[in-house]
Amino acid sequence: MKNITGGVCAAQGFVAHGVHCGIRKNTSKNDLSLIVSEIPCSAAAVYTTNLVKGAPLIVTKAHLQNGTAQAVICNSGNANTCNADGIKIAETMSELTAKELGISPDDIVVASTGVIGQPLSVDPIAAALPDLAKGLNPDGGHEAALGIMTTDTVAKEVAVEFTLGGKTCRIGGIAKGSGMIHPNMATMLVFLTSDVAISPEMLQKALSGDIQNTFNMISIDGDTSTNDMVVILSNGKAGNPEITRDDEDFAVFMKALNTVTVGLCRMIAGDGEGATKLLECVVSGAKDTATAKTVAKSVICSSLLKAAMFGADANWGRVLCAIGYSGADVDVTKIDVSFKSAKGEILVCKDGAGVDFSEEIAKEILLEKEIEILVDLGSGDISSTAWGCDLTYDYVKINGDYRT
Amino acid sequence: MKNITGGVCAAQGFVAHGVHCGIRKNTSKNDLSLIVSEIPCSAAAVYTTNLVKGAPLIVTKAHLQNGTAQAVICNSGNANTCNADGIKIAETMSELTAKELGISPDDIVVASTGVIGQPLSVDPIAAALPDLAKGLNPDGGHEAALGIMTTDTVAKEVAVEFTLGGKTCRIGGIAKGSGMIHPNMATMLVFLTSDVAISPEMLQKALSGDIQNTFNMISIDGDTSTNDMVVILSNGKAGNPEITRDDEDFAVFMKALNTVTVGLCRMIAGDGEGATKLLECVVSGAKDTATAKTVAKSVICSSLLKAAMFGADANWGRVLCAIGYSGADVDVTKIDVSFKSAKGEILVCKDGAGVDFSEEIAKEILLEKEIEILVDLGSGDISSTAWGCDLTYDYVKINGDYRT
Repeated sequence: MKNITGGVCAAQGFVAHGVHCGIRKNTSKNDLSLIVSEIPCSAAAVYTTNLVKGAPLIVTKAHLQNGTAQAVICNSGNANTCNADGIKIAETMSELTAKELGISPDDIVVASTGVIGQPLSVDPIAAALPDLAKGLNPDGGHEAALGIMTTDTVAKEVAVEFTLGGKTCRIGGIAKGSGMIHPNMATMLVFLTSDVAISPEMLQKALSGDIQNTFNMISIDGDTSTNDMVVILSNGKAGNPEITRDDEDFAVFMKALNTVTVGLCRMIAGDGEGATKLLECVVSGAKDTATAKTVAKSVICSSLLKAAMFGADANWGRVLCAIGYSGADVDVTKIDVSFKSAKGEILVCKDGAGVDFSEEIAKEILLEKEIEILVDLGSGDISSTAWGCDLTYDYVKINGDYRT
Repeated sequence: MKNITGGVCAAQGFVAHGVHCGIRKNTSKNDLSLIVSEIPCSAAAVYTTNLVKGAPLIVTKAHLQNGTAQAVICNSGNANTCNADGIKIAETMSELTAKELGISPDDIVVASTGVIGQPLSVDPIAAALPDLAKGLNPDGGHEAALGIMTTDTVAKEVAVEFTLGGKTCRIGGIAKGSGMIHPNMATMLVFLTSDVAISPEMLQKALSGDIQNTFNMISIDGDTSTNDMVVILSNGKAGNPEITRDDEDFAVFMKALNTVTVGLCRMIAGDGEGATKLLECVVSGAKDTATAKTVAKSVICSSLLKAAMFGADANWGRVLCAIGYSGADVDVTKIDVSFKSAKGEILVCKDGAGVDFSEEIAKEILLEKEIEILVDLGSGDISSTAWGCDLTYDYVKINGDYRT
């Protein structure tokens, strides 16, 4: 398994492009992306659990009912959510895209991200579609990645190459992260593409299983978005024997998928709104998976700890506090906590109580950009990891006046 | 029922005092408070649900098992939590205080608030106790309120006067709020005093019932503290017929108690760490209490909405989003949302979709210091209120380096 470039176009038979169509005011930023496979794909998706759902999710869900799709159209700058005519707009986006590509509207994944509750006009999208389609190319993954960004500061692309049945296979993906992100099913926009031959059922199984340990283990701000979805399209062009059951090939596929999704998770967490640091909470010694996950997510979600990490302050009491209110059944007197980064590792709490440690060394460790918070529950051998970011002045700034 | 001054000394037979003993570095800030009743009181308390509990809570809980107490000793600057010798320190604080007052250690409520996981020396407390006791006086409520503050910017005191069986009665209280506050049982330090004659059982019933609609409906930052407790002492000096069952007098007592606790809740929320605004989310039209409370708390806890309120941005989509992920079973298409303040009220969302509204008027309304977020679920006649505050640069600043 090796990391490669190309993002959403790394897999054979995929082309993509992104343009500025006019939904976002800033003309230097793409706001419309298109990803297309040469041939129809097995398709699978997971969606936000928020009761308030963006209209595009409802339309996409209907389109993916048959397990097949061929293209993704996505705009940023407007979520098309809580709009009276939202469904109609999302359907029109699908129809216009399908017409431009000469395929069925049922094979379109439609997505929107941005402000909630503002009317979305389909006009700029309709006007831009011919150029968008004309520009589709095998190197267009980056332009597409740019087009789905909102307050993201960097485009998020990952791809890997691996072998199945002697054939070279690829999985790649792009993500939109930044804010309104909380672990509860799919929690952001992620489009994954693959050239592996795999049935829609097994593709859904792979995706649904994978997100439990990846996209469901990220939190930026505790707000589960209305528009989140993770979609994967797999067109079979690699020519491997089709994966139709839970066999060795499926395990290899799962591993490759996980490499891409963990890569995207780390990018999303590290580029959380206003973030200066990627936080990774690794919980070990848990008696079961639920406990490990609950503790890891509670730590990563604590506003107080996030603010302390911004200040490079080894305030481990906030880690213990977050574990204590997580709802997990843990023995506090068995918990050890360490902080770790490229500068080293330091134990700050042993058996639930503070230990003498050098504040100077702790500060040096916490001034790094990637921080691991290591929690050993001392009660078993199950582990889990969650990803998040620090809480900064810029989070407040970005969200204090996002709409204007 | 009328509001009066005096805080924790408003009720007959209570004296209090606060001093700087040296736990906090800033010598201009009190860090040790003592509240004493002339005679033993009925006592009741509720405690944090955090599994990590401050040692003082464990000691206080043991002391209150018999429903009786006579004094409260509380330090700020150190939470005495996650310390190997915490219980011993809390017991020593009780014993020293009891000795100074000539009462039993079992009648002492002991509390600590501040940094978690740093050893607490009892020496400065022991050294300060004689002067603290000597200074006890019927006007000392304010000094005591100052002594329990951490990052609070104002002392929080409320008191009311009312009549029971022809006798003038009083309930007063002080609170420590600011950070690590989230609705889940008692969520801050609150000491309430009363001169009403009431049995310990009915006092506990009153307190446990009241907090469900008051202190359990506040959130500053989603972090449930390790050291929170709400304690009430009632010494019977008003001379009313003792309340021993759920009768009319009990109802009057509950109403008076609620006036004090709502007053303290609003003060705590409005003085949340870094807060510039008090947010009050009033949910109406719910089918049941659980739904109303869940929705109100979810809205008040949304980091994104809190940041929008800081920026006086009428971003109502974030209200809908927070309702959608709250877990409450609501019909999104029936939800109306308005913003209200001293400057007026404006409808921004009707039946789950945006309405045309004047951004200018909305801005004017949201620039006020006290904002009501009105949510009508359109599905019943049950209401609930939650209190919180905006998320600001100062929250990050305060918590980015709290310990140093």
